[in-house]
Amino acid sequence: MGRRELITRTSAAAVSGAAVLGAAEGTRAAAADRRGASGGRPRSRPNILLIYTDDLGYGDFSCYGSTGIRTPRIDRLAREGVRFTDAYAGAVVCTPSRAALLTGRVGPRAGLPRVLFPEDENGLSDDERIIPEYLKSAGYATTCIGKWHLGAKPEHNPTRHGFDHFFGALYSNDMTPFELWRDEEVVESVVDQSTLTRRYTEEAVAAMDRSGDQPFFIYVAESMPHIPLHVEPRFEGASDAGLYGDVIQSLDHYVGVLLDALRERGLEEDTLVILTSDNGPWFEGSSGGLRGRKIYTYEGGLRVPCIARWPGVTPAGKVSELPVSVLDLLPTFCAYAGITPDPGVTLDGCDIRSVLEGADTAEHTPIYYFDDLGRTLDAVRDGRWKLHVRRHIENPDDPDRDQRELPELYDLERDPTESYNVSESHPAVVRRLRRLIEEFESDVKAELAKAG
Amino acid sequence: MGRRELITRTSAAAVSGAAVLGAAEGTRAAAADRRGASGGRPRSRPNILLIYTDDLGYGDFSCYGSTGIRTPRIDRLAREGVRFTDAYAGAVVCTPSRAALLTGRVGPRAGLPRVLFPEDENGLSDDERIIPEYLKSAGYATTCIGKWHLGAKPEHNPTRHGFDHFFGALYSNDMTPFELWRDEEVVESVVDQSTLTRRYTEEAVAAMDRSGDQPFFIYVAESMPHIPLHVEPRFEGASDAGLYGDVIQSLDHYVGVLLDALRERGLEEDTLVILTSDNGPWFEGSSGGLRGRKIYTYEGGLRVPCIARWPGVTPAGKVSELPVSVLDLLPTFCAYAGITPDPGVTLDGCDIRSVLEGADTAEHTPIYYFDDLGRTLDAVRDGRWKLHVRRHIENPDDPDRDQRELPELYDLERDPTESYNVSESHPAVVRRLRRLIEEFESDVKAELAKAG
Repeated sequence: MGRRELITRTSAAAVSGAAVLGAAEGTRAAAADRRGASGGRPRSRPNILLIYTDDLGYGDFSCYGSTGIRTPRIDRLAREGVRFTDAYAGAVVCTPSRAALLTGRVGPRAGLPRVLFPEDENGLSDDERIIPEYLKSAGYATTCIGKWHLGAKPEHNPTRHGFDHFFGALYSNDMTPFELWRDEEVVESVVDQSTLTRRYTEEAVAAMDRSGDQPFFIYVAESMPHIPLHVEPRFEGASDAGLYGDVIQSLDHYVGVLLDALRERGLEEDTLVILTSDNGPWFEGSSGGLRGRKIYTYEGGLRVPCIARWPGVTPAGKVSELPVSVLDLLPTFCAYAGITPDPGVTLDGCDIRSVLEGADTAEHTPIYYFDDLGRTLDAVRDGRWKLHVRRHIENPDDPDRDQRELPELYDLERDPTESYNVSESHPAVVRRLRRLIEEFESDVKAELAKAG
Repeated sequence: MGRRELITRTSAAAVSGAAVLGAAEGTRAAAADRRGASGGRPRSRPNILLIYTDDLGYGDFSCYGSTGIRTPRIDRLAREGVRFTDAYAGAVVCTPSRAALLTGRVGPRAGLPRVLFPEDENGLSDDERIIPEYLKSAGYATTCIGKWHLGAKPEHNPTRHGFDHFFGALYSNDMTPFELWRDEEVVESVVDQSTLTRRYTEEAVAAMDRSGDQPFFIYVAESMPHIPLHVEPRFEGASDAGLYGDVIQSLDHYVGVLLDALRERGLEEDTLVILTSDNGPWFEGSSGGLRGRKIYTYEGGLRVPCIARWPGVTPAGKVSELPVSVLDLLPTFCAYAGITPDPGVTLDGCDIRSVLEGADTAEHTPIYYFDDLGRTLDAVRDGRWKLHVRRHIENPDDPDRDQRELPELYDLERDPTESYNVSESHPAVVRRLRRLIEEFESDVKAELAKAG
């Protein structure tokens, strides 16, 4: 059974008794429902606050094992919601990871296989229908704050892709020019990066207030902790983990400000908060003992912290070991919003409402790991097994040298650090996972060929 | 205070009450002493059994945290001796690491900065005086078994450098030709690598018997677990960590055979056993959560398991967190043998007898990390601090990209996985460690210039 089928099925069973509103019923009904006016817990059209960090390590929050960094607000969010041990970003680097998040499709399929640089002309295609476009059709107010990195031409601007408002940067904070935009205008060319986290937070709170009776989708794509690291003076030296740790503690503080803002506005019960990240840690940051970092297809490159909280819907304090992916967010958000993704579009994730709501049953959920340039599909995880068929090339002059000892098969249950290749003793698993890779790669290639 | 001065001083204090025999007293006195005939515990001229694995990971033994691999014999050795948590190989790759071990000098200084390949003409210089040459002068019988990898021309053969006997291979087991030599003759051109660990062990036991009244130095340089992995059928599937784990369990078994052989011959009390390795894990193997692997100057590249046992001399069950290095073995072995290294030779390690005997006082012990080609000195550890000034180049086309965010300063006490750079808040430490690097690099360069 494929990934999408399985989780959708269990999810459908889990929510079959709930009243799911149709898209046509529109804004007012949604607002009434999310305020709980229809009685009982709201089960649909929640506000969605998606906080998305940049180059964060799997082990950088206290609730993911950090000792030198204290993240009390994020830890509390985890205690109040579901914390995922096996959540995956959409790619091992920034642009394809963000493309995966917003389109629900892996970067190569979505036409954004690799990191964009200021000299690049391409960006998010009009053919892609992304999360805010879907949610707008269900009456949501949509706001994009922070790092975009899906193209810098006017046609790539977030406001051309379903976001009512945009405040943030078109690139990573180590790229030039690093400017702040409001909608389609540059509003700041010399940016004091130490102010970014605070200002993104203030913009998000303003977006909550601006949404009025509409449910909102607020996407806060933090610029930190991507290099260069910057933090407000008040956080300097706050952690026991250098400037990087201070930056994480600052993020924790501002996550707290956002959560406080929800509570103060009476929106806590009506809001699904998701906190996750775009790929593994780069120069600094802890992979939490996982092998590899950003750019690599070992777990440290793709596995990220992920916490989801919707009081009364997500079981408080649940720790889920099910593999989930940011690719799942689009179908899940659509399902909660009561709308159906375009049937003609291939989505690579699945509706994980049941998992957010506490299910432990979705065992077969392939995770696909493309190389950092999106050229090749190098690894797949299905349940406890992970197969690598290619490896990141470190020596372009001697690429063969890096492709030895393949395939690698790891039993992530017994060997979470991918240290011991068990491919020889599990040939059937190798064959099955290799077929998953071949089929998925063919499927993506076929779609690209069709699109021309 | 420099590293050598400090430990030598504390060591001298620790052993000042012991009767240390002079070199001139020769073989018979040594034999009498090591048998305990002079009364009490032997304090000098022990037999030395040095077991040296290839590409082993820091986390691959149970006593270093492995759960999928069971190493009961090695664990028992650790319980009976001193287990080092912070022991360092001499380099991040094979040849310079072995050069460091045997010459007591870092690879670039010893003229072997990088891995040797079959097409290379160079090898261990006659100008280097290595451990077996020193020990021979103190009456030891010396045997080299296993992987040499310090040159393949006749003048590089172990028997030309102080070893009475040699049985093993001149190269890594992934190089061609991979042949077995006895002394200066090829004795096997088609090698069943699954037999190597057993046969090396049998050779080592034969060397014990051959030594007669002489103290012995037996250097068992295992070919495993370097790729390609091979193991006897009886160990296939023995571990829960694939073929690699089976290979480690086979090594554990044969370490046990060696220890049994010592006991059966009544040599246990007279023998210093050291078990360590040449660099971090390569394709497989666990770094035990440390960052990086073989080739990298992060801890996973250079830190290795190390256990030392000399009953009655090394405190049983001691776990030492002092940084020590294989560079320390030459001066330490010389000291135990009652001889003085050539005064004109710069040694990079120091006499660590006091540490082996339980001292906890040697705080300032710089560890130097050269890049994998021995071109540049990229990092240094001094006590709790480690400074990186350069980084392994992964993208030769864009080397600048890999040299960002330097220097990196890590507090290994708080941050053993090198995740959080604290260079900005500790500028004086950065300056001091940078000076250590500059001075050491200058010193090596000056010696090479003098040597022409």
